[in-house]
Order: sequence, then structure tokens, then C-alpha cells
Amino acid sequence: MIKRLKCHVMYDGTHFNGFQRQLKGRTIQNELEKALTTIHKHEVEIHASGRTDAKVHAINQVFHFETVLDLEPERWKRAINALLPNDIYIKKIENESPGFHARYHAKSKEYRYYLALDEYNPFKANHVTFYQKREPLDSEKMKEAIALFIGTHDFRYFTSGNTNPNTIRTIYEAGLYEGNDCLEFRFIGSGFLRYQVRVMIGTLIEIGEGKKEITVITNLLNLKPGRAGKTAKPQGLYLYDVTYYPHEERDY
Amino acid sequence: MIKRLKCHVMYDGTHFNGFQRQLKGRTIQNELEKALTTIHKHEVEIHASGRTDAKVHAINQVFHFETVLDLEPERWKRAINALLPNDIYIKKIENESPGFHARYHAKSKEYRYYLALDEYNPFKANHVTFYQKREPLDSEKMKEAIALFIGTHDFRYFTSGNTNPNTIRTIYEAGLYEGNDCLEFRFIGSGFLRYQVRVMIGTLIEIGEGKKEITVITNLLNLKPGRAGKTAKPQGLYLYDVTYYPHEERDY
Repeated sequence: MIKRLKCHVMYDGTHFNGFQRQLKGRTIQNELEKALTTIHKHEVEIHASGRTDAKVHAINQVFHFETVLDLEPERWKRAINALLPNDIYIKKIENESPGFHARYHAKSKEYRYYLALDEYNPFKANHVTFYQKREPLDSEKMKEAIALFIGTHDFRYFTSGNTNPNTIRTIYEAGLYEGNDCLEFRFIGSGFLRYQVRVMIGTLIEIGEGKKEITVITNLLNLKPGRAGKTAKPQGLYLYDVTYYPHEERDY
Repeated sequence: MIKRLKCHVMYDGTHFNGFQRQLKGRTIQNELEKALTTIHKHEVEIHASGRTDAKVHAINQVFHFETVLDLEPERWKRAINALLPNDIYIKKIENESPGFHARYHAKSKEYRYYLALDEYNPFKANHVTFYQKREPLDSEKMKEAIALFIGTHDFRYFTSGNTNPNTIRTIYEAGLYEGNDCLEFRFIGSGFLRYQVRVMIGTLIEIGEGKKEITVITNLLNLKPGRAGKTAKPQGLYLYDVTYYPHEERDY
């Protein structure tokens, strides 16, 4: 009998050219499919909730695959982890219904971004972005600005290299939190365009620096003239979580 | 006028074949000398407090070099850091007396080691060692055992590949501390033989597992028959600090 398994995976994206399978270059999908192909002795394809870019991390990315093998979830987890490199780790595996799709049934995604304000530290270099300018950021202004992204908007000016004609997305929650010498950005949305989170963060940083006015966000969301900020570096970005529609709310 | 500068450096050892200069392979000394040679436009040699092995980190390693260039310490720091790769960072530079030597005048070195007891996490994989066996370690027994290393002893059975005929060393402090799902080992000593810290930790782990008795340590320190534990992995080891004799106590 064919079974569908839902897998929760964590990865340190530092040494990957992103999630998606490529002929050349190390990718997370390549490594996961290689491990599953070894176990099955035939090619196995996985389907993730979406891609992440080069150097971007995941605390909880979700994918599914189909199998005829009959193993308990805990044994699946151990078997796959034993074959994965040390920068990818399967956290949990669950049996799902045959129609489940990790991409089509995703309800929301959460991204978090860490901007370190303290002195450079090589141990954190791949896991946060260091803000190393002398002038402090105006975090109150940035908090006011980030709230403007909440709602359903056309984000066509907050993307880079996008090829999707539908640029309408909904952001449910957006917040900026001040930690220990660190700023944490959080976005929960229906989905995000290519580089959207990093362009939004780059714009917020330039607002915090006083280089841009808050109004640039409302102008661009209303397709009025303006210019978004520079795409923020990938090192501080984490796909933090993906949530799914319950079974009865799935269309197909 | 020739000046001698004392430099404090932090590095993530993950992608290095250790500290010491090599013809092939990436080393911390190679990277530091390359940056200094670029600044001086002639070859510059550095002298560190000692070596660290492949994948071992440093929170505060110390080295010195000689220069005829006349720059303020803060400018030196910025100039060198601008040329270093992102896994090495100069924390501080100080002017020292012409006779100062980073290796010969070192008074003590502190090493720390982190053994994680929680579930595997790819973000920590290069910075701690994961203890992934099911049986819990007997940390009380390990605390009792680690104290036996304190004092002046012949450590010839707690090294690996050592070529130094003098195997007498003094350990001033040794302690085991229980953190959040983590064990922290600390050793402060006059100096350490090759792999000594990792062999001592490997022995303590086997005592905590009940595979060895505490008496193995006293036996081996008294050159009686016995067998030390397996060398612990390098990932959790940090050269934490180096202290120096004050000027008036230096012999040469």
C-alpha cells in the first residue's frame, strides 16, 4: 500500500545553494532525495512547502514523499537521519492522508530574521546578519513601519527576480522585537514572493537608518512611485514554521 | 623603530586544519600571516601561545608579531580584520615590550568543552559535541573524577601522538558544570600536551558511562597500568583564554 509521509526538517543553510534540486551544487532537496533513494533502492521525489534561498536556514521546513515501505515514524526518522549530512536533521515524521500535499495545503509560513547589533563574532557569522554601522537604528520607527505590511497587498515592488504573475499575498502578523543586542523580525503570511522577506527587511533597515521615510511602504503597496530598500543578506533568515489546513478544509 | 604587538584573536575552527602554518590546507596562522603580509608588503611571521587542532575553536588565542609600521592599536585591528575571512576575528591589539613572546611568557591556558545532552541540532553541530547515547551520564562521579587531575603530574598517558619528552604539566583548576541540557568542562593549566584535554574528557565520559572506574585516573597519573578513554571529538573544544606573566616576572 502506498503511504504518504509528512516530514519536519531543520537545516543550517550555510553550505547549500538553496533548497531546490539542481544538477550542480549542493541543495537540501538533493541530499534528502539521495537519502530516500538509498533506503528505497529506487528514485524518490520529495515535495516541500516551498523553496528557501542559498544560505537561508530552516527551523521547521515541511515536505512529503510517497512510499511503499512499512516503517513506524520513529524508525523512518532514524533511518533517514543516519544517511543525512550533519547540517540537515529530520525532527519529526507523521503519517498523512493520501491526498496531502506539503505545498498546496500550506496555510501559513513564518519567517524570522536576526540582525545583530553587537561586535562581530565569527561563531555567529553564518546565523545572523551583523549591522556594523556606527549610527544606531531607530527601532521605534521600524516597529511603526513593519505594521504597515500587515494585510492583503500587491507585493510586486517588494520582490526581486519574481516570475509569478500573481503578486497578491496576505501578511497575518508582522513584528519587530528587541533582544539582547539583536533585532528579531517576524512575518507570518499566506506565502511570500521570491526575496520578499529580505526586501521588506532591507527597506525597514533603511527606514531605521533615516535613509527612507515610512511612507515608502504605503506608497509601494499602493503601486505608487518609490523604491524599496536593498535586499537584506541571507545569513539571518530562518523559515521558522509552516502550518497546514486541517483535513476538512483542504480543497483537493 | 621596531614594535611588538600582542593580538587577541577569536576563531571558529570548523573549516581549518588547525592553527599551525601548513603548505597545504587552510590554517589560522596562514590566514593571519597572509593579511599581515598584504599590509606590510613583505613577509610577516606570527608567534602564537600554542597550536590548536583541526576543528578546535578559540575565544581568546594570543599571538605577537613585529612591525616597523606606526599605527594606533584600534587602526591595526580594523586593518587586519578587513583582510581576514569571516571565521577569524581580531578582538584586541596592544603594544607590548620588545622582549614579549606570546608562547614563552604564557602563564596559563584555559580550555572549555561543551557536551550537549539534548536532541541533535544542525545549528550547533560544529560548536558542541552531541552525546547521543540513551543512558544518562553520572555527572556526580565525573565531578569527583575531574578533580583528580588538579596538581602537577606526569600526563604521558593522557596524550596522543606526543613527541615532547617533558610530559610533566600542572593543572591549576578543573571543574565540571551542568548547564541547560549541556555539560561544560573547564581546565586551567600551565600548558597542555597534544590532545591532552580531549583524552582527559574522553576518560571522564567513559567514567560517567560506568565503563571505567575513577581509579583509572590516579593509576595513570602515577604511571601504573591502565588505559585512558578515547580522545573526545574536537567540535566542543575552545581555547578560552591565555594569561601572561607580568613584565617583572619574565625570565627573558
